[in-house]
Amino acid sequence: MFRIGMLTSGGDCQALNAAMRGVVKGICSKIQNVEIYGFQEGYKGLIYSNFKMLTSKDFSGILTLGGTILGTSRQPFKMMRVPDEDGLDKVEAMKHTYHKLNLNCLVVLGGNGTHKTANMLREEGLNVITLPKTIDNDLWGTDMTFGFQSAVDIATDTIDRIHTTATSHSRVFIIEVMGHKVGWVTLHAGIAGGADIILLPEIPYDIDVVVDAINKRKDAGKRFTIIAVAEGAISKEDASLSKKELKAKQAKNSYPSVAYEISEKIQKKTDQEVRITVPGHTQRGGSPCAYDRVLATRLGAAAAEAIMDGDFGNMVAVRNNETVRVPLAEVAGKLKYVTPTSDIIKEAKLTGISFGDA
Amino acid sequence: MFRIGMLTSGGDCQALNAAMRGVVKGICSKIQNVEIYGFQEGYKGLIYSNFKMLTSKDFSGILTLGGTILGTSRQPFKMMRVPDEDGLDKVEAMKHTYHKLNLNCLVVLGGNGTHKTANMLREEGLNVITLPKTIDNDLWGTDMTFGFQSAVDIATDTIDRIHTTATSHSRVFIIEVMGHKVGWVTLHAGIAGGADIILLPEIPYDIDVVVDAINKRKDAGKRFTIIAVAEGAISKEDASLSKKELKAKQAKNSYPSVAYEISEKIQKKTDQEVRITVPGHTQRGGSPCAYDRVLATRLGAAAAEAIMDGDFGNMVAVRNNETVRVPLAEVAGKLKYVTPTSDIIKEAKLTGISFGDA
Amino acid sequence: MFRIGMLTSGGDCQALNAAMRGVVKGICSKIQNVEIYGFQEGYKGLIYSNFKMLTSKDFSGILTLGGTILGTSRQPFKMMRVPDEDGLDKVEAMKHTYHKLNLNCLVVLGGNGTHKTANMLREEGLNVITLPKTIDNDLWGTDMTFGFQSAVDIATDTIDRIHTTATSHSRVFIIEVMGHKVGWVTLHAGIAGGADIILLPEIPYDIDVVVDAINKRKDAGKRFTIIAVAEGAISKEDASLSKKELKAKQAKNSYPSVAYEISEKIQKKTDQEVRITVPGHTQRGGSPCAYDRVLATRLGAAAAEAIMDGDFGNMVAVRNNETVRVPLAEVAGKLKYVTPTSDIIKEAKLTGISFGDA
Amino acid sequence: MFRIGMLTSGGDCQALNAAMRGVVKGICSKIQNVEIYGFQEGYKGLIYSNFKMLTSKDFSGILTLGGTILGTSRQPFKMMRVPDEDGLDKVEAMKHTYHKLNLNCLVVLGGNGTHKTANMLREEGLNVITLPKTIDNDLWGTDMTFGFQSAVDIATDTIDRIHTTATSHSRVFIIEVMGHKVGWVTLHAGIAGGADIILLPEIPYDIDVVVDAINKRKDAGKRFTIIAVAEGAISKEDASLSKKELKAKQAKNSYPSVAYEISEKIQKKTDQEVRITVPGHTQRGGSPCAYDRVLATRLGAAAAEAIMDGDFGNMVAVRNNETVRVPLAEVAGKLKYVTPTSDIIKEAKLTGISFGDA
Repeated sequence: MFRIGMLTSGGDCQALNAAMRGVVKGICSKIQNVEIYGFQEGYKGLIYSNFKMLTSKDFSGILTLGGTILGTSRQPFKMMRVPDEDGLDKVEAMKHTYHKLNLNCLVVLGGNGTHKTANMLREEGLNVITLPKTIDNDLWGTDMTFGFQSAVDIATDTIDRIHTTATSHSRVFIIEVMGHKVGWVTLHAGIAGGADIILLPEIPYDIDVVVDAINKRKDAGKRFTIIAVAEGAISKEDASLSKKELKAKQAKNSYPSVAYEISEKIQKKTDQEVRITVPGHTQRGGSPCAYDRVLATRLGAAAAEAIMDGDFGNMVAVRNNETVRVPLAEVAGKLKYVTPTSDIIKEAKLTGISFGDA
Repeated sequence: MFRIGMLTSGGDCQALNAAMRGVVKGICSKIQNVEIYGFQEGYKGLIYSNFKMLTSKDFSGILTLGGTILGTSRQPFKMMRVPDEDGLDKVEAMKHTYHKLNLNCLVVLGGNGTHKTANMLREEGLNVITLPKTIDNDLWGTDMTFGFQSAVDIATDTIDRIHTTATSHSRVFIIEVMGHKVGWVTLHAGIAGGADIILLPEIPYDIDVVVDAINKRKDAGKRFTIIAVAEGAISKEDASLSKKELKAKQAKNSYPSVAYEISEKIQKKTDQEVRITVPGHTQRGGSPCAYDRVLATRLGAAAAEAIMDGDFGNMVAVRNNETVRVPLAEVAGKLKYVTPTSDIIKEAKLTGISFGDA
Repeated sequence: MFRIGMLTSGGDCQALNAAMRGVVKGICSKIQNVEIYGFQEGYKGLIYSNFKMLTSKDFSGILTLGGTILGTSRQPFKMMRVPDEDGLDKVEAMKHTYHKLNLNCLVVLGGNGTHKTANMLREEGLNVITLPKTIDNDLWGTDMTFGFQSAVDIATDTIDRIHTTATSHSRVFIIEVMGHKVGWVTLHAGIAGGADIILLPEIPYDIDVVVDAINKRKDAGKRFTIIAVAEGAISKEDASLSKKELKAKQAKNSYPSVAYEISEKIQKKTDQEVRITVPGHTQRGGSPCAYDRVLATRLGAAAAEAIMDGDFGNMVAVRNNETVRVPLAEVAGKLKYVTPTSDIIKEAKLTGISFGDA
Repeated sequence: MFRIGMLTSGGDCQALNAAMRGVVKGICSKIQNVEIYGFQEGYKGLIYSNFKMLTSKDFSGILTLGGTILGTSRQPFKMMRVPDEDGLDKVEAMKHTYHKLNLNCLVVLGGNGTHKTANMLREEGLNVITLPKTIDNDLWGTDMTFGFQSAVDIATDTIDRIHTTATSHSRVFIIEVMGHKVGWVTLHAGIAGGADIILLPEIPYDIDVVVDAINKRKDAGKRFTIIAVAEGAISKEDASLSKKELKAKQAKNSYPSVAYEISEKIQKKTDQEVRITVPGHTQRGGSPCAYDRVLATRLGAAAAEAIMDGDFGNMVAVRNNETVRVPLAEVAGKLKYVTPTSDIIKEAKLTGISFGDA
C-alpha cells in the first residue's frame, strides 16, 4: 500500500485541481494500491488531522474546475512555531499526523509562504514534494507558476472592457491588478491590454513622470489614459523609506488600496477625472486557461514521477519548457521579481509604455 | 438631401454602435442622399455645434465594437435650463445648431436623463427619435434596453469566478452590481450566478434577515454565502427616512459604496470574514453579447423606419418581441422598477434565494 | 412521502441541469419528504426502469454545468408503439415503471419529439409536467426555450471569428448553424454576427438571388461575403418538390450537409473561393449563458409550483416574460417556425441582409 | 526619411496586427520621419506594387484586432520562380518594387512558406526582417510563434463544449484540430481539454491501439471517449508508404478529412457511435489571447530594434523567454516537430493519455 497526503495552501488559484489530477493520474497509472489522504483547508488539515480519503475517481473530471476540492487557508509561516490557543505545537502536530497515517509522502501545492513551511517539514524529516501554485508567478526556481496566465487573462479582459469605455469618455482609468509584492501579472496584463502606463513594485514610480505621460497623451489629442497598477506599486519616496517609516506613513493615510492613492495624486496635479477598477478576487477564480491546464498537468505528472523515483525534498518546476526538480532549500524564502532591465521591460518601453521611472 | 443628427448621451454601454449602425444602414438602404451629423460627446456636441460628418462607411464593421464612436458625456437635465459659464442658454444653443444645419431629425441614444432632455427638445419643436440605451434596463415603456444583457453576462461571470474561490475558502462574498436606482442587473446576474442572497433597491433589506440567511447556510454545513448587492440597495431603516434625513445620514458615514456598509453590518453580527468585489465599469465595457446586438440592430432599423415614416417624438421600444413606438411624453421622467411581487421574484424565492425581506 | 420521477430526453443542451435544479430546489423548499427518481438516458430509463435515487444535494452546484446529470438519448416517438427486439411494449413498460415506483408525477425535459411522447403518457393517465428544452427554439406554446440563447452565443462567436479571417482573405464564407427544421438560431446568430446573407428553412432561397448579393458586395469593393445557413435551409426548387421527390433527389447527391450544396452552387456561378465552417455539436455544449440560466431556473421553479398545485398535463412556458402553463395536448406535434413576414425579418432586411428570396 | 515596407503572408492568424503595431510603435518612438508601405495581400502586393501608405495612427488601437489590416494571401514558394500568366518574373518584380520605393527594409510576417521566400529575397540583396507568425508553431528557430496559444485556446474550448455533450450521450467524439504537418496545437489542446486519445503526425497511430483504448474506457464504465486528432495525423501503414504511394492511396478514398477516415475505422471495429467536430478556420480567428498579444508586441519591438541596429537577414524569435535574432538562412525550409520522446509527451502518457502508438 502506498499512502500519499495532499494539501493546497494559501490563496486559491486556477488549475489547483488540474495539478492534483495530474499527480493522482500519474501515480495510479503505475502503482496499484494507492491511498490518498486529502487534508482539508491547507496545513490546518494536517495540523488537526482533518482529512478525507480520496480515490482516483475523485480527481476525474476536475481538470477544468476552478478552486480546490480540498479547500485551502492561509497559515502564516511565522506562526507555525507559535503554539496555538490550546497550546498545541503545530509543527509537532503535523509530523504526528504524517507518521500516524504512515504516509509515504506529502504533496503540497502552494506559493511562497507555503514553501517555507514545506521546507521546514522537509527539514523535520518528512518526504515532501511541492508544486508551484500562485497567480503572482513570484516563486523562485521556476519560469512559470500555474494560475499566472489565467490571472493575466482576466486582468487583460478587465483592461479590454475599460478600454471601450475609455474611448467613449475623456478620463484617466486606473486598473489595480493583483500580484502581491511583484509585478508579473500587471506587466503582462498591462502589455496585453495596451495600457499606456504600467506601475510595478520593482520600478518605483515618480508621480511627476506619470503626470507628464498623461499630459503628453492629452496634448497629442488622445482622449484617455489607461494605467495598470500592481497592488504592490510604490512611489520613489516611499521606496526610500525604512520599513518602519513606511508603515507609520501608511497608517496615517486611509486609501483602500494603492490605486486610490495614485488617483488622488493624479487628480491633484491634473484636471482629469480618474476612474478606478479593482477586479480583485475574480483574478483567482473560474476555470483555468488552456496554458495553465497544460502546465499544471505536466507538473502534476512530473511530481508523480519524482514520487515514484523516491526523490523527495523538491519543488517540481518548469525551466525552458522542461520539467525539473529544484531543492526546496533553494526555493524557500526567495522571491522572483521582475528585472527592471530585462528584455520585456525594454521592449515594452520601446512601444511607448511608461513605467513612471524617467 | 436628407440630414440626420445623431448623438449618444449618458454613461456608455454595449451595443451603442450596433444600434447606430442599424439606423444608418436602414436609412441608407432606402434614401440615396443622406448626410449624417455625428455630434461629439452627447448633448455637448449639439450645444457647442461640435460634430463630424459621417458616411455609411463609418458605420460599417462596428456591430461588435464596444463604446460609442461618437463619444458621450453626462449632461444633467436639471442643468439644461441653467446658462453655462459663458452665459449660453443651452436649450437655445441646441435648437440653433439643429436649425442652422437644417436637420430633418435628431436621433438620440440614451437612458433616463437623456430622455428627459430629448422630450424637452421635442416640445421645443425638433423632430426627435430616441433609442433606449442603458445597462440598467430602467427605461419605462420598453421591455428591454440594449446593454442590459451584456452587463448581466459580465456581472454573472464575476459571480461565477468568485464562486470557485468561495468553495475553497470559508467566507461571505459580496458582489456589488451596477444598476443605478433599480435592481434589474443584480436580480438577473444574481439568479444566473447562483447567489444565495440578492439585495435590491426595490426590496429594502432587514440586516437581521440577511444575517439569519448566512447563519442558516453555515448551520447546514455550507462553507460560504454569496450575496449580490445592487449599488442602490437600501436597508429598511434607511428606506423609511426622508430624502433629507437619508442624505444627512450618508454624509456622516464614509463607505466607498453600499457593499462596504453591508459588509460592516455582517461582520458586526457574525464571526464570518467578508470579501467584497466591485466589477464596476467593466459592466459597461467590451463587445456586446449576441442578444444585445440583435436587439440594438432591430431597434436601429425600427428607428430608421419611423424616420422614413416621418413619425417623430417617439422612443423606439420592444414589447412582447415586437418593435413599437412609444411617445416620448410618456417615457420621460419615469423609471421602470423591479416589482417585488412579480413572477421572477417569487420564482427566485422558491429556489431558496433570500431577498433579505422576511 | 412525495415521489418525483425526472428525465431528460433528446439531444442535450445547455441549462438542462439548471432547470432540474430549479424544480428540485422549488419542491424541497416546501415539501419535507421528497424522493427523486432520476431516470437514466431519457425515456430509455423509464422503459427499462433504470434510475438513480437522488437527493437535493445532487442538484446543488449544477447551475452552471453543461450537459445533463441524468444522461439522455433519442427515443423516436414513432417507435414508441413498436415493440422492441424483446417484444416489450415500451408504453406499457413506462406506465409499469411509473406505477411500480408509486410516483406522484413525472417531470420531462425535452424538445419536440419528447413532448409527443409526454403527451401520450398524459393520455395514458400519468401525471406529467414538461419543460421546454431545445437549442432550436421550435417548441410551440412558449416564446423561448432554454438552450437557444446559449447556442446563439456560440454560433455568433463562430461567425465573429470567421469575420476576422474574412477581412484578411477575399472569399465567401458559409457558416452552417444548427436548428433542425427551423431557422431561429441562424436568424439570431446571423444578425448578431453581421452576416450578409441568411438562409432559413422558412424562406426558401433562390441561388441566383444569393449569387447576385455576393456579386453586388464584390462590385461595391467588399472583399468578402458571410453567409449564415440553417442546417435545414432549402432552395425554392426543392421546396416545391413533394417529400418523396425530395428524398429521391437527396439520395442521389452526396453533400455532407446543406452548406456543401450551397457552396458548390456558388462556385459554379461565381469565381469566388468558398470556405465552410460547421460548429456542429459545440452549439449544444458548455456552460449555459446567463439568459438561459435565469430562464431555466424560472421554468424549473414554475414547474415546482405546478406540481405542488397538483396541476398536471402541462408544459411550463414563458410568454411576455411571465411563466405560464400550456396544455400538452396543445403543444405536442406542433412546430414554432420563423414567420417570413415578422418584424425581425423586415428589420433585418432593412439593414441590408439578404434572405435569398427576392 | 526612413522607408519600411511591411507585409503579412500565408494563412491569417491572431496577433498579426499586434505584432505590426509593435514594430511601428518601436520605430516611431525613436525615428522621426518614417514612411510605412503596407503591401496588400502578402507578397502579391510586393509583386504588383500594390500598397497603402500608412502612418503610426493606422497601427493605433489594433492590438486586440484579429486578422491583418494588410490582408494576406498564399503565394507558394515553388511558384515564385515560375513566371505568372503575363510572363512577369515575380522575384524580379518584388526586387523592382523594393528598389523603386527606395525602401530601407522589408518586414515580413509569416510562417514556413513565407520564410522560404523571405530568405530568397535576402539572398537577392534585400534588407529583410521576419516575424514568426503561425498557429501551427512549426517554425524552426523559435520556442513559440504568435497565433499558437490563441488557436490552442479555441481548440480547447471546442473540446470543453464537446465534453459536456459527451457526458450526456454514450459516444466516441473526434475533434479535428489544425496544425498542418505538425501536432503542436492538437497536443496542447488535447491535454488542456482532457482528451483521452491524441493522434499526431509525429506519432503514427495503430488503429488497433486506438480501438483498444476506447474499449478499455468502455469496460471501465466510462460512457464516452474524446479523441483529439491533428489534421495531419497518419496511420502506421500510411507512414510507411512512399510519398507517391500515399498520394495514390489518398486519391482513391474520399474522406473530407482525416477525422472521417479514423471515424470509419473505429466504427468498423467497435459498436460505438462516432461524432466528428471540425472547428476549422475559427482556430485562426478573433481577438488574440493575452499571451499572444504580449509575445507579438515583444517580437514587434525586437524587430524594431534590429531594424534600427541595421541588423537584417534575421527572423526575430523567442528562446527561453528572451528575444533573439536567428539568421533566415538557418530558419528557411526547416520544420519544428513535436518530439515523440519529449518530456511533455511522457508526462501526457503518464496521466493516461493514449497516443495510439503502443
